[in-house]
Amino acid sequence: MTDDALVIFTPSGKRGRFALGTPVLTAARQLGVDLDSVCGGRGICSKCQITPGYGEFSKHGVTVAPDALSEWNSVEDRYKRIRGLVDGRRLGCQAKVMGDVVIDVPPESQVHKQVIRKSATERVMVMDPATRAVYVEVEEPDMHEPTGDFERLQRALAAQWQVEGVEADLSVLRRLQPVLRKGEWKATVVLHKGNHDAATRVLDIFPGFHEGPLLGLAVDLGSTTIAAHLCDLSDGRVLGSSGLMNPQIRFGEDLMSRVSYVMMNPGGDVEMTSAVREALNSLAKSIADEAGVDPAKIYEMVVVCNPVMHHLLMGIDPVELGQAPFALATSGSLSLDARDLDLGNLNRNARVYVLPCIAGHVGADCAAVALSEEPQKSKDMVLIVDVGTNAELLLGNETRVLACSSPTGPAFEGAQISSGQRAAPGAIERVEIDPVTKEPRFRVIGSDLWSDEPGFDAATAVSGITGICGSGIIEAVAEMRMAGLVDPGGLIGSPDQTGTDRCEPHGRTHSYVLYDGSAAGGPKILVTQGDIRAIQLAKSALYAGARLLMDAMGVDTVDRVTLAGAFGAHISPKHAMVLGMIPDAPLDHVTSAGNAAGTGARIALCSVAARDSIEATVHDIHKVETAIEPRFQEHFVNANAIPHAVDPFPNLAGIVTLPDVSFNTSGSGGEGGRRRRRG
Amino acid sequence: MTDDALVIFTPSGKRGRFALGTPVLTAARQLGVDLDSVCGGRGICSKCQITPGYGEFSKHGVTVAPDALSEWNSVEDRYKRIRGLVDGRRLGCQAKVMGDVVIDVPPESQVHKQVIRKSATERVMVMDPATRAVYVEVEEPDMHEPTGDFERLQRALAAQWQVEGVEADLSVLRRLQPVLRKGEWKATVVLHKGNHDAATRVLDIFPGFHEGPLLGLAVDLGSTTIAAHLCDLSDGRVLGSSGLMNPQIRFGEDLMSRVSYVMMNPGGDVEMTSAVREALNSLAKSIADEAGVDPAKIYEMVVVCNPVMHHLLMGIDPVELGQAPFALATSGSLSLDARDLDLGNLNRNARVYVLPCIAGHVGADCAAVALSEEPQKSKDMVLIVDVGTNAELLLGNETRVLACSSPTGPAFEGAQISSGQRAAPGAIERVEIDPVTKEPRFRVIGSDLWSDEPGFDAATAVSGITGICGSGIIEAVAEMRMAGLVDPGGLIGSPDQTGTDRCEPHGRTHSYVLYDGSAAGGPKILVTQGDIRAIQLAKSALYAGARLLMDAMGVDTVDRVTLAGAFGAHISPKHAMVLGMIPDAPLDHVTSAGNAAGTGARIALCSVAARDSIEATVHDIHKVETAIEPRFQEHFVNANAIPHAVDPFPNLAGIVTLPDVSFNTSGSGGEGGRRRRRG
Repeated sequence: MTDDALVIFTPSGKRGRFALGTPVLTAARQLGVDLDSVCGGRGICSKCQITPGYGEFSKHGVTVAPDALSEWNSVEDRYKRIRGLVDGRRLGCQAKVMGDVVIDVPPESQVHKQVIRKSATERVMVMDPATRAVYVEVEEPDMHEPTGDFERLQRALAAQWQVEGVEADLSVLRRLQPVLRKGEWKATVVLHKGNHDAATRVLDIFPGFHEGPLLGLAVDLGSTTIAAHLCDLSDGRVLGSSGLMNPQIRFGEDLMSRVSYVMMNPGGDVEMTSAVREALNSLAKSIADEAGVDPAKIYEMVVVCNPVMHHLLMGIDPVELGQAPFALATSGSLSLDARDLDLGNLNRNARVYVLPCIAGHVGADCAAVALSEEPQKSKDMVLIVDVGTNAELLLGNETRVLACSSPTGPAFEGAQISSGQRAAPGAIERVEIDPVTKEPRFRVIGSDLWSDEPGFDAATAVSGITGICGSGIIEAVAEMRMAGLVDPGGLIGSPDQTGTDRCEPHGRTHSYVLYDGSAAGGPKILVTQGDIRAIQLAKSALYAGARLLMDAMGVDTVDRVTLAGAFGAHISPKHAMVLGMIPDAPLDHVTSAGNAAGTGARIALCSVAARDSIEATVHDIHKVETAIEPRFQEHFVNANAIPHAVDPFPNLAGIVTLPDVSFNTSGSGGEGGRRRRRG
Repeated sequence: MTDDALVIFTPSGKRGRFALGTPVLTAARQLGVDLDSVCGGRGICSKCQITPGYGEFSKHGVTVAPDALSEWNSVEDRYKRIRGLVDGRRLGCQAKVMGDVVIDVPPESQVHKQVIRKSATERVMVMDPATRAVYVEVEEPDMHEPTGDFERLQRALAAQWQVEGVEADLSVLRRLQPVLRKGEWKATVVLHKGNHDAATRVLDIFPGFHEGPLLGLAVDLGSTTIAAHLCDLSDGRVLGSSGLMNPQIRFGEDLMSRVSYVMMNPGGDVEMTSAVREALNSLAKSIADEAGVDPAKIYEMVVVCNPVMHHLLMGIDPVELGQAPFALATSGSLSLDARDLDLGNLNRNARVYVLPCIAGHVGADCAAVALSEEPQKSKDMVLIVDVGTNAELLLGNETRVLACSSPTGPAFEGAQISSGQRAAPGAIERVEIDPVTKEPRFRVIGSDLWSDEPGFDAATAVSGITGICGSGIIEAVAEMRMAGLVDPGGLIGSPDQTGTDRCEPHGRTHSYVLYDGSAAGGPKILVTQGDIRAIQLAKSALYAGARLLMDAMGVDTVDRVTLAGAFGAHISPKHAMVLGMIPDAPLDHVTSAGNAAGTGARIALCSVAARDSIEATVHDIHKVETAIEPRFQEHFVNANAIPHAVDPFPNLAGIVTLPDVSFNTSGSGGEGGRRRRRG
C-alpha cells in the first residue's frame, strides 16, 4: 500500500494524488477545485459539504473502498445532530483522504455557483460577488510585539484568506476592539473587493462565526418607475422585488422636461436629487421589510439608469445632457459609498456600483441590457430595443455592436394618448378587431377574460375600464390597420369608408370607439386621429433609430429582435411589426427579454467579473448619434407610414395581409377626411 | 556648425546634447533635472524660471555665446512687463537652446526645494508634498466619441502630467462641467497623491490657470495643548503657528484620567471626540484667519499625537490603552478624509494623514520625534526624551533604535506641585540659590529680569508672581540640592541643619520659602517636601525608562541627550542632570530639539517620501514595555536619590560638586525631620 491516494473531484474532473490523511478541503484547494468555505476549514460553517462516491468508477478507472475517507469525527457528528446533514454528505474540512476516492462537489458547495437566470433565454450566471464573509482567527495582542488589532486582523486575512492590504474605515476601526474581544479573537469579516485595483475593504465585522445574510440590491432607476430586486449575495437568490414611482415625476414627466425644470429653477437639480435618493432609501427599507430581513444587511447596491437619472442621482446638474454635444460629466462606472448618496437605510458601509454609460443619451441602463442580452456574443445579427420614454437600441453580433437612442416620447407609455393611462388595473392592454364586423374586443389589466366572454363585467367591476395603456394602444392601432379602419398613411376612415359607425367624426377627423361606458356613467374610450399621429411619431423615431444602426452596420435586415423593458415584455411582436415599430423579422425571432436592464443590474450585483466584462464591452460599443445623423430625418419620414413607406416587410407579409385602403382623397389625411364628409 | 548643442544644468551637473530649438524646460525634463512647472510649459505659471550663464566655463569645458539661447519672445516680454522677472532670468519653457549653454536652476524653481528647518540642528528638508496643482488642457466633448468630461480630464492628466487613473469624488464631479466650460477646457487641478498604492485624487478644480495657495496644517495634538503650523505646500513656508488648550482637559488632566472618564461614563469617549475635533476645526480657522488666508485652501492636515489622543480623535474608545496589554485598535498610519473627522473648516476634500504609532504607550508623536531627530541615522548613541505627562524615550543609533514610555505624571508640568502652575506669565521659570546665603533669586515668565535686579517689581506688576511652572520647579529642586538645602535622599533640612530660616517647618517636614508676597497680599510660594517627593517620583520614572532602554541596548552611557517637547526646550540641562532626570552625559551634548513632534508633523506634511520613511522606521523601532520589565522597579527605586543612588555621574561631577549633606537622622526622611525639631 502506498502512502498517498488518488482523489478525483466531480463535476470538474480535477484529480491529483495526496498524502493519506489530507483533508478533502485541502486537496480541493490545492487542485483549484471550487469548494466553498467561510470558516477556513475549522468545521464551523459547513459550506464545504461534499459527497464521496463509493465502488467502481470505470470512467475514472478507480474503485473506491468503503474506508476511502476517514471515519466520521465528533465535529461532523455534532454538526449533523444540531444542524442536520443530507445523507451521504461529509464536511470536506473534516473528512480525510485514506484511499483512492471520487468526490462530488454539489452545486451549493461551490463558491462560483451557477444560477439560472429567470429570463426568456434562461441563461446561467456565475456567482462571483464583490462582497463575501470570511471567518478568521486573529492573534492576541502582545506587549512585546506591539501592533494594532487591525494590523493583526490584516495579517490574519492575508495568512488565512490570501487577501492582502485590507482597509477599513473609522466606523469599523471603532468597533474592532470590542468585537475581537467578545469573539475571543475569532471574527467573521465582511469583505468587499474593490473595483479594478482598489483595495479590499472591511465593511463589517462580527464576533466569532456569524451567519447573517449578505444582501444586495439591484436597482433599475427609470424616469417613471424605480424597480429593485433584493438578492442574497451568497447564492444570487432573489428575496424580493418591488418598485415605486419615481418621485421626480412631479418635476416633469419625461427626461427633457426634468432637464428644463433645472434650467428654469436654479437649485431644481438639488430637489430632484434628494427626491430620488429618498425614494431609493425608502425602497430599500420596504423591500427588506417585505422580505423580513434587516436593511442594514444590504452591503451592496448596483444601479442602472439613463444618463439624466444617473446625473440627478449623483447630484450632478444634468443641463449638459439637454444640449449638444450631450456631454456626460462622467461616463465610467462608479464605485461609491452608499452614505455619499444618503442611503442611510443600507448598511453604514454599503457600497454602490453604477454601471458605465455608453453616451450622453445611452446610459448605464443600456449597458445593463447589453450585460444581460450579450449582443457582443451573438452569432446572428440581433436588434435589442429597450422601449421607454427614450428608446435605447443595440444592434450587433460578435463582430461589432452599435448603440443609439431615439426620442420616442411617452406615447408608448400611454401618455399623450387621449384615453391613455399607465399600465394599471382597468387599463385596456390587449385589443382585437374583427376584420369583418369591425367590432372590438379587449382585455383589461386585472382580468384574463376578453370583453366578449362571460363574467367579464363582474371581473372588471372593481377596477372599471378606465383607459388604454401602452401595449393596448399599439394593439389597437395595429388591429385598426389590419381591419382596414386605418390606411397606410395613418388616417382613420369615415363610417362610409369603413362601413362602421364606430368611426365617429370628431371635427375634421374621425375616432374609433373602442369602448363606450357612458351609459353606465363610465368613460368613452376612443382611438383618435391624434392618438394615431402620436403613435406614428413614436414608432417612426424608434424605427428610424434602428434603421440608422442598420445603415451604420451595413445591413438591410436583422436576424432577431429582442424587446426589452417592462413595457417591451407586454408588446405583441405581431402588432409591433404591423405598426412598423421594428424592422421586419421572422415572427418567432422577435422575443421579449423582460426587464433586461434590471437583470443586468442583478448580474453585476452578483459578479465582479461581469462588471469588468461590461466595462470592457461598453468601451467597444460604438455610439451612433441620432440627433446629428443626416439620414435620421429621411428614415423618420419614411417610417411614418404603417408599417413603412419604402422598406419591405416580407416576413410580416407572410402572416398578415394588410388591407389596401386609402382614406386620403386629397393627399392630406386630415383634409381628406373632412372633404369626404362634406362632399 | 552642428545641429545640436550641449546643455549643462547647475547645480545638478546633469548634461546632454539637444537639437537646436529645444526649449530649456524640455531639455530639463529629459535629463530629469528638477525644474518646476505648473502649466506644463505653456508660459503661464512662470515656475520654470532659469538663469543662463554666459562666457567661459572652464570647469564644464564650454564657452557660452551671447546667442546660446533664443531671443526674448512675446510671452516672456509680457510676463516681465506684467509680473516682473529678476534680471538675467528667462522662462525655461520659452527660451530655446541655440548653442552650448550652462543653465542654473535657482532654488525657487526646483520642485523638490530644500527648506532649512528652523530647529536646533538646522537640518534641511526636501519638499515632496502629496498635494500639488497642475494646469491641463482638456479635449472638448465630441458626439461621435462620447466620453465623460471626467474621462477626458483623466486622459489629459495622463498625457500632460503622466498621472494615471486619477479619481474624483462626487463633489468634484458635480463641479466639473461648469468649471471646464468656464475655463474654456483649461483648468487647474489640485491633485493629491495617495498613500502607498492608493490612487491620485482630484481634491479641487479651478477654471483656467489658477494660482491660489495650497495650504497644509501640521498638528501636534497633545493631552494638554494643541499646537499647529499652517504651511504653504508649495515651498514649506510656515504662514502661521498657533495653539490652544486641549478642551478634553475638562474630562481629566492626564491621559489615564481621561481613559477612566470613559470607563466611568458610557459615551464619554464620544464627548471627548467631539471636543477635540471641534478644537482642531476652530484652530484651523483661527490660524488661517490670523494669516489672512482662507481655511478652505487647507487641503491637507498631518496629525501627531499620543495613542490615547489618537484613539479619541478617531472616535475609538481608548479603554484598551488603559490596561495591559495596551492594545492599539490600529497602529499603522492613517489616511482619512477631513470630513470623517468633522473638520468642516478645511477644504471639503481635504485629506488627513496620521503618523503611525509605535506601541500602545508610544504614539505617533514619538514617531514624529523620530522623523525630526532621526536617531536611526545617528552615528553616536543618542537618547531622545520627549518630556510630557507621559514621557516618551528613544535610544539608539544607526544600528538600532529602542523606544519606551514612562509614566512621569504631570509634576514636570507644574501639576501636583503645591504652588505649581502652567507656564504662563507670572510663573517662576528660573531659579538660583546662593550656596552661601541660601537666598534665592528667580525669573518669572514675561520678564527677562532676575528678581534681585532693578525694575523687576515694575516689570512683573501686571502679571504678578503667581506660582512655579515645570522648568521652575526643576531648577528650584536642583538649586536646593546644590545649595545643601536638600540631601541626596530628597529631604529638606531644618533651619538648624541648613542655617536658613527659609526652611520653614510645616508639620513633620520642612518647606523652602522661594518667595513670600503675603505682606503685599500676594502668594507665598514654597517648595514643600511633598513637591520634592512629586519631582522625585517623576524624575525616577523618567530615568528608569532611560535606564531600561540602556539595558536593552547593552550600554551604560549615552553620547548625547536630546530634550524634546515644548517643555523640554525650557529645561536647563545642568539642572536636569543635577536632579538625575537624565543619564550623565557631557553637558554640551545635552540639547533641546524644541517641539520635535511638531517639526516631525511639518516634515510629513511637506513630503510623502518622509511619510514612507517614518513608516519604515517605526516598523524597525523596537518597543520596550516598561510596565512589565522586572528591572523597572529596581531602576525606579535607585533613581529616587538626587541625582542617583548607584549610577555614577562623572560628567556632572566635573562641573558641580554636590554638598555631602544628610538630614535623615533615623533612616526615614519625614520622621527624621520631626525628631530633629523635637529633640
